[in-house]
Amino acid sequence: MSLLIALDLFGVVVFAVSGALAAGRKQMDLFGVMVLAFVTAIGGGTVRDLVLGATPVLWIDKPVYIWLALAAGFATVALARRVRVPRQVLPLADALGLATFCVIGTERALLLGFGPGVAIVMGVMTSVVGGMIRDILCGEVPLILRKEIYATAALLGAAVTAGFYLLDLAVIGTWAGFAAALSLRLAAIYGNLSLPLFTLGDKRHD
Amino acid sequence: MSLLIALDLFGVVVFAVSGALAAGRKQMDLFGVMVLAFVTAIGGGTVRDLVLGATPVLWIDKPVYIWLALAAGFATVALARRVRVPRQVLPLADALGLATFCVIGTERALLLGFGPGVAIVMGVMTSVVGGMIRDILCGEVPLILRKEIYATAALLGAAVTAGFYLLDLAVIGTWAGFAAALSLRLAAIYGNLSLPLFTLGDKRHD
Amino acid sequence: MSLLIALDLFGVVVFAVSGALAAGRKQMDLFGVMVLAFVTAIGGGTVRDLVLGATPVLWIDKPVYIWLALAAGFATVALARRVRVPRQVLPLADALGLATFCVIGTERALLLGFGPGVAIVMGVMTSVVGGMIRDILCGEVPLILRKEIYATAALLGAAVTAGFYLLDLAVIGTWAGFAAALSLRLAAIYGNLSLPLFTLGDKRHD
Repeated sequence: MSLLIALDLFGVVVFAVSGALAAGRKQMDLFGVMVLAFVTAIGGGTVRDLVLGATPVLWIDKPVYIWLALAAGFATVALARRVRVPRQVLPLADALGLATFCVIGTERALLLGFGPGVAIVMGVMTSVVGGMIRDILCGEVPLILRKEIYATAALLGAAVTAGFYLLDLAVIGTWAGFAAALSLRLAAIYGNLSLPLFTLGDKRHD
Repeated sequence: MSLLIALDLFGVVVFAVSGALAAGRKQMDLFGVMVLAFVTAIGGGTVRDLVLGATPVLWIDKPVYIWLALAAGFATVALARRVRVPRQVLPLADALGLATFCVIGTERALLLGFGPGVAIVMGVMTSVVGGMIRDILCGEVPLILRKEIYATAALLGAAVTAGFYLLDLAVIGTWAGFAAALSLRLAAIYGNLSLPLFTLGDKRHD
Repeated sequence: MSLLIALDLFGVVVFAVSGALAAGRKQMDLFGVMVLAFVTAIGGGTVRDLVLGATPVLWIDKPVYIWLALAAGFATVALARRVRVPRQVLPLADALGLATFCVIGTERALLLGFGPGVAIVMGVMTSVVGGMIRDILCGEVPLILRKEIYATAALLGAAVTAGFYLLDLAVIGTWAGFAAALSLRLAAIYGNLSLPLFTLGDKRHD
């Protein structure tokens, strides 16, 4: 169980970093940056806990999540003032968060007794929601709607995690799912990998 | 009660179709389309269940909603590859979903013992939220903010449903409310019907 | 306790006014305006109640919130038709709502037994969420991302409220927190006050 907790804290940190970086592109004041870091970091887990009925939600139950998210946001600000941050760091941080949360979301649902189908949906949902909120608040089209594989990576990670869990190999599944989701996202970010796109026949507008 | 369940499943399907069509306009990969179809389909019911405290929410309690939404999204993709989809299909699917959910949201609240006022608010809210989420994720201005009658149609359907319910004619109310909301939306889509608009005196900007 | 309730109702009214004004800029029909007024007014409190597990949420438990928000929205429409509304009224109404809700959110959390850290986070969150939803629905970049101090004002108000509460001076804290948050926001709106901004080293894009 402590592996899941460690991963959860890691996911909160990297999503907070992605939120702080996104805020930096919009030139927000310091506390605005930290609000965005916080919302991105806890967004997915909050939605997960809400729909499962697990209230009060995780960061109210264990405030360490709050402090960790804010600290990560602050550290990002402090570091970015001294060091030039390459553009790739934001999607990389987001990819780490996505891979982490799709595994955690899936396993938490399985541990609560839900079937693999619902668990996979929980995994995908909790991994994409944080980034969605971050992008929407920043006035950007959410990463999930770009051409690169995004939801697909979360789906792969969740499915791999659920599969190994059902074979009673949960710990292997945790790492395998994380690796699968992260690999697919990195291949999409750096390798221009993409799936066939769905486009309507009617293309007269946008 | 089975009439409500049938309508609920129908609403999920048509909102999923609208979500898939909207995603198609943004050229998403297959799984991105299915995420959008799913979120649009269950968005309204999820918010309704959350604010009423009915957790776990409907699609976790009855996973058939998940599979139905995903199947509808997938079928839309498969069909749209072969057949040119007219532009009107998206607002039509959304209108069917709106009419369905405003009736269901109102009746569910009434059946839980809430007064007609709260029930009408629940009906309007659960019918417009799914479309809102879909439009925001796609970077579009939500349909509810366009000139055509939208929230008004949901309000009419909810009010009609509540009225008949209080007269002990719930089944008639279900159909009457659905017909009223749908008619008003179709009149707005195809007939250029509109209400007086509210505009501020100060028009210097946008 | 009645001071908190009075403030809560006041906050609902001013946020509803801000929502109606924002809708007016987008030329919505009457019921669309009232939906936006309602969502802006109850958005923050709803999220607060959801994450704390206090369901059914406040406006379902006490429908007076619904009627107040809708009445305020309607009154704004009626007044704006006769009187030219200066552009400053919207950020002013939003500032009043922000100052009110950051105090209430903080105190409600403290009264429920949560620590000052969590309470301050609740205060900030419930005061910024309503405006966020309003701005996103209107297709605007949320006020929280503009250069003027926004989240910082909410943070100050929440911190002052929590501080006085811990010194057993809750009533003084309520007014002091409200005054602090409002003053800071007004200084930002009218006085061009601002904090140092966080900008990434990489500025090649936007």
